[in-house]
Amino acid sequence: MTLHIKNVWLQDKGLVDIHTVAGKIKTIGPALPPLANAQTLDANGLAAVSGLVNGHTHAAMSLFRGFGDDMQLMDWLQTRIWPAEAKLNEEDVYWGSRLACLEMIRSGTVAFEDMYWHFHGMARAVEDSGLRAGVGAVMIDIAGEKQGEECRAQAVQYLEESSRYSDRVKFTLTPHAIYTVSAKSLSWTAEFSDKHNLPVHIHLSETPFEVSECLKNHGVRPAVHLDQQGLLTPRTILAHGVCLDDAELDLIAKRGSTIVSNPVSNMKLAVGGAFPYLKAAKRGIPIGLGSDGAASNNSLDMFQEVKTFSLIQKHTNNDPTVLPAADAWRVVTGVDAPLLGQGSGLLKAGENADIVLVRREEPELTPNHDFISNMVYSATGHVVDTVIVAGKILMKNRIIDGEKEIRLEAAARAKKLCEI
Amino acid sequence: MTLHIKNVWLQDKGLVDIHTVAGKIKTIGPALPPLANAQTLDANGLAAVSGLVNGHTHAAMSLFRGFGDDMQLMDWLQTRIWPAEAKLNEEDVYWGSRLACLEMIRSGTVAFEDMYWHFHGMARAVEDSGLRAGVGAVMIDIAGEKQGEECRAQAVQYLEESSRYSDRVKFTLTPHAIYTVSAKSLSWTAEFSDKHNLPVHIHLSETPFEVSECLKNHGVRPAVHLDQQGLLTPRTILAHGVCLDDAELDLIAKRGSTIVSNPVSNMKLAVGGAFPYLKAAKRGIPIGLGSDGAASNNSLDMFQEVKTFSLIQKHTNNDPTVLPAADAWRVVTGVDAPLLGQGSGLLKAGENADIVLVRREEPELTPNHDFISNMVYSATGHVVDTVIVAGKILMKNRIIDGEKEIRLEAAARAKKLCEI
Repeated sequence: MTLHIKNVWLQDKGLVDIHTVAGKIKTIGPALPPLANAQTLDANGLAAVSGLVNGHTHAAMSLFRGFGDDMQLMDWLQTRIWPAEAKLNEEDVYWGSRLACLEMIRSGTVAFEDMYWHFHGMARAVEDSGLRAGVGAVMIDIAGEKQGEECRAQAVQYLEESSRYSDRVKFTLTPHAIYTVSAKSLSWTAEFSDKHNLPVHIHLSETPFEVSECLKNHGVRPAVHLDQQGLLTPRTILAHGVCLDDAELDLIAKRGSTIVSNPVSNMKLAVGGAFPYLKAAKRGIPIGLGSDGAASNNSLDMFQEVKTFSLIQKHTNNDPTVLPAADAWRVVTGVDAPLLGQGSGLLKAGENADIVLVRREEPELTPNHDFISNMVYSATGHVVDTVIVAGKILMKNRIIDGEKEIRLEAAARAKKLCEI
Repeated sequence: MTLHIKNVWLQDKGLVDIHTVAGKIKTIGPALPPLANAQTLDANGLAAVSGLVNGHTHAAMSLFRGFGDDMQLMDWLQTRIWPAEAKLNEEDVYWGSRLACLEMIRSGTVAFEDMYWHFHGMARAVEDSGLRAGVGAVMIDIAGEKQGEECRAQAVQYLEESSRYSDRVKFTLTPHAIYTVSAKSLSWTAEFSDKHNLPVHIHLSETPFEVSECLKNHGVRPAVHLDQQGLLTPRTILAHGVCLDDAELDLIAKRGSTIVSNPVSNMKLAVGGAFPYLKAAKRGIPIGLGSDGAASNNSLDMFQEVKTFSLIQKHTNNDPTVLPAADAWRVVTGVDAPLLGQGSGLLKAGENADIVLVRREEPELTPNHDFISNMVYSATGHVVDTVIVAGKILMKNRIIDGEKEIRLEAAARAKKLCEI
């Protein structure tokens, strides 16, 4: 697949052309010559930016968007989410994930890290949508060793079966959390990840309750417990990290694991704090940003997420200079956490051809004193005009093939699932 | 002006028609008969909601969007904003305000409370845009009694001259703050407001520094100082109110003044806290929501503002049940603070024909388990299709007359002003 994008505006270069070959950016430069057998896309001055990366979500939970807001967490889970999830089948997950992918493409996200039930439902949705994702079947064995055996066997099976998908679908081990997965299964996950070089994506330190339970049950704090099972490695993605203390951050930095902050979800569920960004960044920990599921956000628009990320960090640290726009932008485009997004997050030759074209002439992006400030503080996903992943155009002029069918099918399934 | 809106979807009624006559809603009901001499608008199933109300902004500061973010407040004001503002003329304010009105219309705002320089620049922009606004010339007399005399005389003159505008332009007294306006001018404002029944719009209790300075200079806290000048009345709009203590909230409740929270600006400037919403609401204080100027937000989209409002209140109170969607929606549509927005904020017969038509079929509004939840937590201003104010269509299918000219003129002026 070969693509010649003409007349894109780059903040540091002005108007240029981009050649992409075999899913990679080949050349960026002014008025490039025609490319043999290439599809041509005239950007007419649209701005090119790196695609956004959603480092933690549960895509199919878009089915439960707005199904029980403003509730206490356990009340919400017990009376709404769990009864509805009990009815989920693979096709529901497929259509819910397609809906999420639709929303992500429309808001400029090119890659995400997912964690949910029905692996093939998710994986097929990623495959069909054209996005990149880390996908794995959630692992929970609170019911005991039989359940543990089942979910370990399932991981082995899914790894094998994941070969049927393109390399945009990255098989990822997704143990749910330290309070829902046994030490045995966590250790097994560590070994399996090491043996097959697989990423591991897990919730960690989301609430003070998780910390106190961990101290009670294991005598150590969550990151230490995870490390004791061998699960803090450079392949590990830790979602949330709200309640990590200094020693845990030191440990995570030493092990090279990535932390993904989910500011909107953390605020909406009032988990009891904000991710200690400054401390984590100072230690050089790779940091990404996630939306969490649409049921606890209730949006997958990473443009809105990155603004809230910067705002809550300024607010918490009582300092307007914290997380300036350029730093926040690096986080949301995956530059600060290369484990996410399957690439460097940089628009340059040799990198993935994951390119988002933005309409610069929206009223909310006028004037253009500082383009990156406009991206972080003024834009929403609706300024995105065109999305290209691995050199393929997924959306052009905000139109995505099959959008209406996906919306209708997902809405019908959501309605049925939530009739409880 | 007579308008027949066909096939609008109301959350509680399903598909109906709306008749508006002379700027008011006349009838709402299924399949209404044709209306003599009426313009017809077929909404084709778009959802009708009340227009959003921006209770505190400085519209023309859209010219300074992104011109110095992530800076300490005084550094930002002294090295960026004040030097640029020193060059502002009435035409700059007109075009900056037109740009702001463009952004507000596109995001479903129908009315706002403004405070800035060059009264006629603002007022003409409001008049020409078709929106409603409370508009006044900012009053500051820190330079001494001569400046005080001038700005009091100016208020008298502008009140008189405001008769040249339609009643959508509501002349409002806008003393800047207790630390920039003398007790003499504040008292005068109170008397003048009483005599002419004029609203008063003032910043109050935005930072701990304002409180400590007030205690040092006047021996009382900000709301008490304002009350001592007679300026806490049912006509008073207090912007921010971040640092109000219980006694001040009691006093404000007793006087019937309105407080407008500006959560995004407060977080971005890290003013040192969050508005005590629960305490204010418990006391029955009328509460509105504002964006503040685009230079400290950097957006005027009240859909994003209301989400952040709910999030920061849940976060601060450590309780996900705080400010549920329905309550937040009442605040942002002006229902909880009728002094703002020039109407009740309700869509019913006899009320202002200020109506926003929303596209329900966006991916981010799918599924529709709870429409108001979708409005508060999932929508941005980009879901707005059509905006009607006082029965006149200001935007249809997201198209506003003259948009490009306004963008280009404002951008050119912004560039010139910021070459410092």
